[in-house]
Amino acid sequence: MGCSDHDSNIIAEVFLAAELRGHASHGMIRIKDYFELWKAKRINTDPQVKIVHESPSTAVVDGDNAVGMVAARRSMEIAIEKANNAGTGWVATRNSNHFGIAGYYSMMALKYDMIGICLTNANPLVAPTFSISRMMGTNPIAVAIPAMHQPPFVADFATTPVARGKLAVAEKKGEKVPFGFVQDKDGQPSDDPSILKRGGSMVTLGGDRTHGSHKGYCLSSIVDIFSAVFSGANFGPFVPPSVAYLPVLDKKVGEGTGHFFGAMRIDAFQPAMEFKAKMDNWIETFRLSKPIEGEDHILIPGDPERDAEERIMKEGIELVPAIKSDLVMIARELEISFD
Amino acid sequence: MGCSDHDSNIIAEVFLAAELRGHASHGMIRIKDYFELWKAKRINTDPQVKIVHESPSTAVVDGDNAVGMVAARRSMEIAIEKANNAGTGWVATRNSNHFGIAGYYSMMALKYDMIGICLTNANPLVAPTFSISRMMGTNPIAVAIPAMHQPPFVADFATTPVARGKLAVAEKKGEKVPFGFVQDKDGQPSDDPSILKRGGSMVTLGGDRTHGSHKGYCLSSIVDIFSAVFSGANFGPFVPPSVAYLPVLDKKVGEGTGHFFGAMRIDAFQPAMEFKAKMDNWIETFRLSKPIEGEDHILIPGDPERDAEERIMKEGIELVPAIKSDLVMIARELEISFD
Repeated sequence: MGCSDHDSNIIAEVFLAAELRGHASHGMIRIKDYFELWKAKRINTDPQVKIVHESPSTAVVDGDNAVGMVAARRSMEIAIEKANNAGTGWVATRNSNHFGIAGYYSMMALKYDMIGICLTNANPLVAPTFSISRMMGTNPIAVAIPAMHQPPFVADFATTPVARGKLAVAEKKGEKVPFGFVQDKDGQPSDDPSILKRGGSMVTLGGDRTHGSHKGYCLSSIVDIFSAVFSGANFGPFVPPSVAYLPVLDKKVGEGTGHFFGAMRIDAFQPAMEFKAKMDNWIETFRLSKPIEGEDHILIPGDPERDAEERIMKEGIELVPAIKSDLVMIARELEISFD
Repeated sequence: MGCSDHDSNIIAEVFLAAELRGHASHGMIRIKDYFELWKAKRINTDPQVKIVHESPSTAVVDGDNAVGMVAARRSMEIAIEKANNAGTGWVATRNSNHFGIAGYYSMMALKYDMIGICLTNANPLVAPTFSISRMMGTNPIAVAIPAMHQPPFVADFATTPVARGKLAVAEKKGEKVPFGFVQDKDGQPSDDPSILKRGGSMVTLGGDRTHGSHKGYCLSSIVDIFSAVFSGANFGPFVPPSVAYLPVLDKKVGEGTGHFFGAMRIDAFQPAMEFKAKMDNWIETFRLSKPIEGEDHILIPGDPERDAEERIMKEGIELVPAIKSDLVMIARELEISFD
């Protein structure tokens, strides 16, 4: 598609991270979307990602409409550089695109003994509490915190009860979903995973007002504001589609999709060894909390993804026929050999 | 109780903010708890709140076992000073106590054209997903973001479906609560608001695993780690009780209760006027999202509290008889006149 070797490697690495961590919904299944965006000239494969504003601990980055991974990875590198000098680094990125798995960028900080944070806004599918309008994406939050002997704490979650991909899977299987994930066009609770096609919307974490959906709405809003208002990207309902079969929106309030990155040097707060020993203690303490009958043990954020990675490194990544035929088609169009 | 005039004014101001913003659960009802902690010599009314570690954008503050408001207010002032110099400021505070309403501290940043953030851990009442152990507090998150003509965006919420106070209110009225707030000692869903007294626990935002309680658990954990592991305070199940009728815990893993504060200078990202005009646009856009039938309009985070403040400024604060008798008792013991 014209990406440099450097950029291609980054994109592949982030796709691979999604597959290995068991989030295939953010992996190879997306390659075709990116390809179609490129064919439609809606994505820039030869970008100049650059800082447009900065302070000792902050920067705003213009992604030059790059493939999201390229803009995001550079932005997180800048956050880490800033943290090296100022203790913490915070980067808001505009004019970017879909970037894959948020956890990847937060985890970049770990090897520097830093905490990593990554937020992004996304296509509007989610309604605020009491609303039927799709105003927000599933706007994820990722936070990675290093420990010493224990594996790191890695939280990476959408601010909705489930990720969009789970609805697609249920729809393909012809199954209903539990109430509390989506609502119909009038705002009535629905168990139909295809309701988004008929004016429905996803709800925010919490599900309904009684159970705290307004808190999920707050979280999703904060992710949107940090990602887009800080950076000068499009916010809320104006985030551009990450697939080529949806038209470009008429109205723009900024440039492209927005992300937000943070890196915090542990020793800006206390000696790293001391902190990491305490994190071991935190993790061990939480692991020892008493499980509900029928459950083996308590999970620490990051455990399921690490288990998936161990398994998939042994078993290999499953190449689903539909994805394989996408890749064969792309290879043919680009005249690349593919076995 | 021996607090300086300066400290007394701060404590009163934060209590008043809670009452005015309609969160009486964090207002005068707590004065007796603070008084009893002081009588039990478990709180220091003549503290030396000081920085024990710092970098250009960060600090760790030792609260010297102060009344929480005194340590928290000073910590947020330090975060604002750091932000003035480095673009952002981040302060982790240990050896503190219950500090009232988190939103108050986040809102301190607004007048400097900064975004304010405040987190705190709290007494363990909440079980992680799949667990029956009380490992975490209702660990709130507060984020205040300034706008231009629109009032600021102020999110201030516990990382549980409801605040602890709502259970107490239902219990006093002899009412049940909806399922999805608490579980019994075996982890079975319960509608009994007094179940905490019989080994039950609160659940995290999301309610159950299907509906994303693991995301609420992630959030609550992040608040705990930022507040306590960064600062050197007690984390999770070791957070000391904020009432004197519960004994001091046997095991300590740090000093007192922990908080975390952030201040981000808007113009570290872009000119403040530009940002605030965009926030107006964000708020107006979200206000115009279409309400579900039967609802008037969509709320912006901060709206309910501002409405409460307007009403209460006119009508005055209701002095509940039980609280009045607490205050009369305290006044008598301290030989203060009270009408």
